[in-house]
Amino acid sequence: MKIINSPEEMQRTAQNIRRAGKTIGFVPTMGYLHAGHLSLVQTARTSADLVVASIFVNPAQFGPNEDLAAYPRDFERDEKLCRDAGVDILFYPTPGDMYLEEHSIWVDEESLSNVLCGASRPGHFRGVCTVVAKLLNIVLPDIMVLGEKDAQQLRILRRMVRDLNFPVKIIAAPTIRETDGLAMSSRNKYLTPAERLEAGCLFQSLEKARALFAAGERAAGNIKAAVRAAIEATSGKVDYIELVDDETLRPVQTLEKPALLALAVKFSKARLIDNTVLQ
Amino acid sequence: MKIINSPEEMQRTAQNIRRAGKTIGFVPTMGYLHAGHLSLVQTARTSADLVVASIFVNPAQFGPNEDLAAYPRDFERDEKLCRDAGVDILFYPTPGDMYLEEHSIWVDEESLSNVLCGASRPGHFRGVCTVVAKLLNIVLPDIMVLGEKDAQQLRILRRMVRDLNFPVKIIAAPTIRETDGLAMSSRNKYLTPAERLEAGCLFQSLEKARALFAAGERAAGNIKAAVRAAIEATSGKVDYIELVDDETLRPVQTLEKPALLALAVKFSKARLIDNTVLQ
Repeated sequence: MKIINSPEEMQRTAQNIRRAGKTIGFVPTMGYLHAGHLSLVQTARTSADLVVASIFVNPAQFGPNEDLAAYPRDFERDEKLCRDAGVDILFYPTPGDMYLEEHSIWVDEESLSNVLCGASRPGHFRGVCTVVAKLLNIVLPDIMVLGEKDAQQLRILRRMVRDLNFPVKIIAAPTIRETDGLAMSSRNKYLTPAERLEAGCLFQSLEKARALFAAGERAAGNIKAAVRAAIEATSGKVDYIELVDDETLRPVQTLEKPALLALAVKFSKARLIDNTVLQ
Repeated sequence: MKIINSPEEMQRTAQNIRRAGKTIGFVPTMGYLHAGHLSLVQTARTSADLVVASIFVNPAQFGPNEDLAAYPRDFERDEKLCRDAGVDILFYPTPGDMYLEEHSIWVDEESLSNVLCGASRPGHFRGVCTVVAKLLNIVLPDIMVLGEKDAQQLRILRRMVRDLNFPVKIIAAPTIRETDGLAMSSRNKYLTPAERLEAGCLFQSLEKARALFAAGERAAGNIKAAVRAAIEATSGKVDYIELVDDETLRPVQTLEKPALLALAVKFSKARLIDNTVLQ
């Protein structure tokens, strides 16, 4: 596995790979890798000749009161995990090389970004879109693998690829979970042991919603109320519980088309998200 | 010369050209071509194996009170000019194929866009950046040739290519002028015959500024006053006359580093721009 720090060298390397007729599968990450990331790498391996993973804790997607400085980092461990998972190139740039002096270009999404996590994290998806646009131009992948756990991010990046015509195919990979259903996330590390025992409630609340839906419930209000009750039985505080159209992310009252049920829950130091599609 | 309307077909064609090891030179235009555009094509021909030109009157870069509907178009003539100039592929998409339903991604420039033409045309450069980001992803050029006439656009697109890491090299080509110095522009067509006789004043005012600068004048105010006097001797109305740092586009009082002298002048139906770098 080759480690590349310089964006220029990464881009040159990618151009040479493509000139040689090989395809590139790309997994963008913020590091502190877990089994969820590694499953994305496996998907990329089966879909392309070479796998590039990136590790970059993107300052532009953290708000002023968010956890940029505290965001967990462990490059040595990440490096070993990538090597063992069969990553061919690990792209690991510095913030200073990614955002040059007088950086003034931003990629904005103006419809899907205003709800769910975008509502409580203003500027977050602008940071995500900008860094992923940069990474796509640096890594030049044929396919990019994204996790379904970040449901809104996945939909916004699909929209970005469509609207800016990036020559890349996005593959969505299913959420990987702990045995109690908790979605794997680098932020799970922020949970206290007591909170960790409770944090399965996100998944369990989604299971309840799926059961209600399977039994014929179509009123968004009833489904959301059941989800809320399951969360509020723990110390977790609901940030949002939303049922939105799976395409437009506009709120739905009655479920007729595929709907995204998404929630964010705050524990003392961890803000966790999860989602499911009801269809 | 091949004419391609579909963005998907253009992108596939570009990918095949690159896979075959050939380089692509790209000249984006809004059509109604003149000798200025054709000189960009010549520059592209000497710098790449194949030349792609695009003709697309981009709705997103026109303001609500601007000349989108009236913007001059003549595809048959443009097609012949491109063929004769040695364009290999003419990309000619429809607005509906370039901006799909629910288009919601925009590329914003937040520093260089707030002055000069950006100040009098809010949203203009956002439209320019968005469409050029799309065109770069569709045409996948190795080099893109832009005219120096659109000085602010050139600097903003250089910034976009830098900040979003587009794998393309920008080549700037000098302004082509009529015999009286008037910069070639599709909008010159809007001039009445009497205004056409006066419109050389833009170039002549820049000549005056260059002469003052060569004689040692370094006070921006004095140079701008001379330019204004030359314009105001005609029926043209000054939209702006600015002397700005050539890199940052911030106003300068005293010329120490290379400075961009840029002006926009309104005649009855035509808004004309021109510029020079004083160094």
